[in-house]
Amino acid sequence: MSAVPPAGAAAPAARVAPAAGLARFSFNQATAKHWPLAEVVAGCVAAGVPGVGLWREPVAEYGLDRAARLVRDAGLTVTSLCRGGFFTTPGWRDENRRAIEEAATLGTTELVLVSGGLPPGSRDVDGARRAVADAIAELAPQAAAAGVRLAIEPLHPMFCADRCVVATLGQALDIAERFAPEVVGVVVDTYHVWWDDTVYDQIARAGARIAAFQVADWVTPLPEGVLLGRGLPGQGTVELRRLREAVDAAGYTGPVEVEVFQADLWSRPGPDILAATIDTYLTHIP
Amino acid sequence: MSAVPPAGAAAPAARVAPAAGLARFSFNQATAKHWPLAEVVAGCVAAGVPGVGLWREPVAEYGLDRAARLVRDAGLTVTSLCRGGFFTTPGWRDENRRAIEEAATLGTTELVLVSGGLPPGSRDVDGARRAVADAIAELAPQAAAAGVRLAIEPLHPMFCADRCVVATLGQALDIAERFAPEVVGVVVDTYHVWWDDTVYDQIARAGARIAAFQVADWVTPLPEGVLLGRGLPGQGTVELRRLREAVDAAGYTGPVEVEVFQADLWSRPGPDILAATIDTYLTHIP
Repeated sequence: MSAVPPAGAAAPAARVAPAAGLARFSFNQATAKHWPLAEVVAGCVAAGVPGVGLWREPVAEYGLDRAARLVRDAGLTVTSLCRGGFFTTPGWRDENRRAIEEAATLGTTELVLVSGGLPPGSRDVDGARRAVADAIAELAPQAAAAGVRLAIEPLHPMFCADRCVVATLGQALDIAERFAPEVVGVVVDTYHVWWDDTVYDQIARAGARIAAFQVADWVTPLPEGVLLGRGLPGQGTVELRRLREAVDAAGYTGPVEVEVFQADLWSRPGPDILAATIDTYLTHIP
Repeated sequence: MSAVPPAGAAAPAARVAPAAGLARFSFNQATAKHWPLAEVVAGCVAAGVPGVGLWREPVAEYGLDRAARLVRDAGLTVTSLCRGGFFTTPGWRDENRRAIEEAATLGTTELVLVSGGLPPGSRDVDGARRAVADAIAELAPQAAAAGVRLAIEPLHPMFCADRCVVATLGQALDIAERFAPEVVGVVVDTYHVWWDDTVYDQIARAGARIAAFQVADWVTPLPEGVLLGRGLPGQGTVELRRLREAVDAAGYTGPVEVEVFQADLWSRPGPDILAATIDTYLTHIP
């Protein structure tokens, strides 16, 4: 983006002034999956929330350029775009090239990558993992040129077969470290990594590669399909503050994005969800 | 046990002659949870299955000494007893001392330990892990005296909060290696470890500490509560034969115990379950 706005462009909007305690807080829109984007943005502005994490599908539905204008005019920072990846799926190349462009258009530097699971009928987990590393190598030059970081997110090992063969922070770093830290980083999501007895060592190792810090709590029993059972901060068993302190100690100064997939939560009105997210964040994270 | 049977003791029964391909096969009774013990034993003998894995609850229900006689007279090897552990639960000490005695009475050398999860209301996963290591240190002398090995089983990380804070083979070995290999070992269960990108290195590291090799396949979507969604060999995504070859290459020559918790399978008659287990074992494991 040019330092001087082109003729006819709106002047840069004033940034949202964060409410008390929310300077690092970001609201991932998937936490209120059914809340329309324009209302998410208005709700965040009204609550003094300075950042939002966006998803490609609702952005596409609203219109990419229109969404980019909406958040920019509102003075919100887009802390990440979810998600690229799924490298074991046909069409991954074009899909990810588009995702990089979308991230740049939305003005975020972090594109979250969920690697994808095993191809249908395959048991070759090593092969799938090699394909992920190869795909990232192929995408890295475009990402670097666009000023977008490829942020590899390890998902919990219970997703290894069907969503993400990258199952630990250590494994994500083994891939990321082949590239410059401003081009390929990692996502630390408390829900996915808390169980790992090496996680604090791996967070220290990650250092400047920490592209995003996402927060959700671990709640049992897990629901069928295990996707929609996450908890708001404090609802579960994760040492959330300890993990936040660990990423900080590793040098991370970026946003803390709360991203909770929970069927019960999704059934509530958007403003209630945002209020509950802010409340539990303030109680359990800073 | 004395080399000379005491007066009045039955002569040792002839061992079951394994059917073709079943010399290493063991049927874990939890695979047919609702099949009464006496029928499990008769079914195994009839099918030429030389080994069974037993569980404490059905053994207690049948009567410990009576169960020990039943399997001995049938010529079956008890390949393991499930399970001790749950060290984060009140009463763990007495419960585990009894479990060691039961294993010795049943004539098995391997007592499977599932460590237990976080105590109710706790988020202190490090503390829970220290408690597990301390408990094993406390039990090791009794186990050594009884000729029973404490076999630490890492469960899949999705069980970390509520069943087992020991979540990887590497972590199990970090504990086991403080003791002699004939006193404290590890269980390699394909269902729990397959996703781990370090698992083959850890199996090689385990070597003579591999106390049991258990087999189940990974099937998605996971059911509510995630306990009863395991697959028979070949139903899922795990490279079962590759893992069997890896434990063999590490020096393991013991039984291959198929242990599948699956609601659909449990609803079938016991003999059908055993036949399906043998069939899928022969197709996917040797």
